[in-house]
Amino acid sequence: MRIVDLIRKKRDGQELSCEEIALLIRRYVAGEVPDYQMAAFLMAVVFRGMTMVETQSLTRSMLETGKVVDLSFLPAPKVDKHSTGGVGDKVSLVVAPLAAAAGVVVPMMSGRGLGHTGGTLDKLESIPGFRVRCTEQEFKRALERNGLAFIGQTEDLVPADQKLYALRDVTATVESIPLIVGSIVSKKVAEGIDALLLDVKVGTGAFMKTEVLAESLARALVETSKALGMKSVALLTDMNQPLGHAVGNAVEVEEALRVLGGDGPEDLRLLCVEMASHMLVLAGTVKDLPEGRGRITDCLRSGAGLEKLEQVIEFQGGDSAVVRHPDRLPHARLRQEVASPQAAFVAGMDAEKIGHAAMLLGAGRDRMEAQVDPSVGILVHKKVGDRVERGEPLCTLLYNDPGKVPASLEQVLGAYHWDHQPAQPPALIKKILQ
Amino acid sequence: MRIVDLIRKKRDGQELSCEEIALLIRRYVAGEVPDYQMAAFLMAVVFRGMTMVETQSLTRSMLETGKVVDLSFLPAPKVDKHSTGGVGDKVSLVVAPLAAAAGVVVPMMSGRGLGHTGGTLDKLESIPGFRVRCTEQEFKRALERNGLAFIGQTEDLVPADQKLYALRDVTATVESIPLIVGSIVSKKVAEGIDALLLDVKVGTGAFMKTEVLAESLARALVETSKALGMKSVALLTDMNQPLGHAVGNAVEVEEALRVLGGDGPEDLRLLCVEMASHMLVLAGTVKDLPEGRGRITDCLRSGAGLEKLEQVIEFQGGDSAVVRHPDRLPHARLRQEVASPQAAFVAGMDAEKIGHAAMLLGAGRDRMEAQVDPSVGILVHKKVGDRVERGEPLCTLLYNDPGKVPASLEQVLGAYHWDHQPAQPPALIKKILQ
Repeated sequence: MRIVDLIRKKRDGQELSCEEIALLIRRYVAGEVPDYQMAAFLMAVVFRGMTMVETQSLTRSMLETGKVVDLSFLPAPKVDKHSTGGVGDKVSLVVAPLAAAAGVVVPMMSGRGLGHTGGTLDKLESIPGFRVRCTEQEFKRALERNGLAFIGQTEDLVPADQKLYALRDVTATVESIPLIVGSIVSKKVAEGIDALLLDVKVGTGAFMKTEVLAESLARALVETSKALGMKSVALLTDMNQPLGHAVGNAVEVEEALRVLGGDGPEDLRLLCVEMASHMLVLAGTVKDLPEGRGRITDCLRSGAGLEKLEQVIEFQGGDSAVVRHPDRLPHARLRQEVASPQAAFVAGMDAEKIGHAAMLLGAGRDRMEAQVDPSVGILVHKKVGDRVERGEPLCTLLYNDPGKVPASLEQVLGAYHWDHQPAQPPALIKKILQ
Repeated sequence: MRIVDLIRKKRDGQELSCEEIALLIRRYVAGEVPDYQMAAFLMAVVFRGMTMVETQSLTRSMLETGKVVDLSFLPAPKVDKHSTGGVGDKVSLVVAPLAAAAGVVVPMMSGRGLGHTGGTLDKLESIPGFRVRCTEQEFKRALERNGLAFIGQTEDLVPADQKLYALRDVTATVESIPLIVGSIVSKKVAEGIDALLLDVKVGTGAFMKTEVLAESLARALVETSKALGMKSVALLTDMNQPLGHAVGNAVEVEEALRVLGGDGPEDLRLLCVEMASHMLVLAGTVKDLPEGRGRITDCLRSGAGLEKLEQVIEFQGGDSAVVRHPDRLPHARLRQEVASPQAAFVAGMDAEKIGHAAMLLGAGRDRMEAQVDPSVGILVHKKVGDRVERGEPLCTLLYNDPGKVPASLEQVLGAYHWDHQPAQPPALIKKILQ
């Protein structure tokens, strides 16, 4: 079996066998298949897609290139949460401490931001001293002690994904459902978790712009997770406007702290309660969602979630005083309000443009190796359904480099769509797949 | 401008600018764009295609990576002929000497066979001593003296094509009209010719199985040639059965010699007269096709074509006595007749299977680095429209290794389609595009 024949088979729309996919992935990781053949194969997958069986073979083959973390020494159920990426999506910072406070073990392995979406690791690193890199032993000790650890992907976890992702990033082959599924699910299974809550974002600020596409991705994620023996539920949630008000890194941590303190923007708070409740159901800690909501609301009221986060920050080397004194987080030196060009209702938002505007200020990266400025970002004051007067502030730009403002400003202004009638804010949760 | 953005643009079906294509090709040849990015781009082109403007930009950019041979010291018009590849296609061996004998300069730069199609260079190398590699100076001297030279592509002619073709071969990206056009036309313009006759094969033994596809390729070849300042005509010719009777290397040279001697199979002879006449028209040596046919028929009758080939073989180090004594060509040690399994009419043939059968005997190569056995091949006795009795020979396999016969035999038997009614042999020339 020659690799070029496998590429041709996929190019011509035929289904590859489990053995063919396993061979390709194994030989690629062993360095026997060159990057250029894999790049051609990946582009053929972008166009042809993969059947559910192929997607599962891919995921299993990727998983088999590394080891699965053994968390069986922890008696409690282990549940992680993964978001496909959005603008202002700081949900992980809230739900992980809440679920952990309610007795679930949350081995949260997160990624960095790229393009218009932020990453949980970048946000956490805005807390002075916070370390997201650790050994497997440290990771296990953190979970044993706190029931929660926030870490980056370790080097030996799914080597196929490390190598494939680096290649996809430079060959425009990131945007493919089976490749996304293979990457996410193989890593999550390798973490040694029992169940996974998936937050599949849909809308103007998400990778999946339509509900049909988002549902395809969610379905493939859930079915592949199950095929690999991991329980899973996917929520299709709205990304037609930023979540909450803060978009950036330190500003998002601050907003997450407010939610954990029982306050914060309503959309974010509601979504976090729902997500954390689903994690408790997946863990089997509660019998159903209403019971889960009750437990999570208790954790919010008692401050148990906030305390859990404080504990974790302390353990991971961060300045845990930020939990009580958010002003200890880095702040941008300068700020500028973006005035509304007209008096009208906000009819819709292009959330991607808001994310892009924050990236332009330095809150995100346009390529993997770029640096992030933890202090900059955007505060979004007006969202869909809001009435705005001419000259009233739509957003506030928080920045350090005035040279970056004009391009960012243009994106923010272009993100707003107007109407003379009030619009209904989009539903937060569009669908639940399990 | 990042290369990944160019890949994405093509992937998403947008048109690239001339500057973008030029940048990509220039940086690829300079080693600044890695193979894996080019491989992803090529696969995106396979799926998305290219507009005529993009195809012309690609061809021009490829051409600009090398030099154009300066043949202006030769006063006569310079015309080459190119075939997209077929089974038993020895037309070049006949038309090049005929056109040269009629006063056209024919700088024939050919390729090697791959898969089920043979290559002119491999066929010529079955003549003992014949050399197809030479310096540019030797090439020019050959043209000056004989008006004809058969050579392989020199190293510095279109470096982009050398590099791209090697990559396409191992990434399943050969089959793409714009990439084929870029490769063929850039090389032909670089030869320094005034005009090009294109033989675009269509049918079961051709790369293009349907007339619609073949016409798209022919149209793109002709328009791109013109855009680069090279006159060009394309003939869509039949490849639903092998051309002539001989398939292989020495056996094809032998058949070509018979045609040049005024004999040989009728289909091959007719096609060669038409093709050579078109070359004379393109050269401006004759005013129209009927005059061209007259001149070519004269060259056949007088033996001027045969003499020209003899001269060229001599000049390129070959045993020119083969022209008068074809038995000096290498012969296979063994032969086996393939008996017809039934009494019926040949309704159709899968010419690709005949080509594949010859390759299996050693007449062709399944990968670039494989060796060719010049002596082996197939003689096809029965073609479309012929009546065959049960047990009557359909073909004769000429071979040296008996172990290779069973697989070859199976291909030959599978190539024949039968009917109880006589079928009309396919028209030789289906369309002329200019």
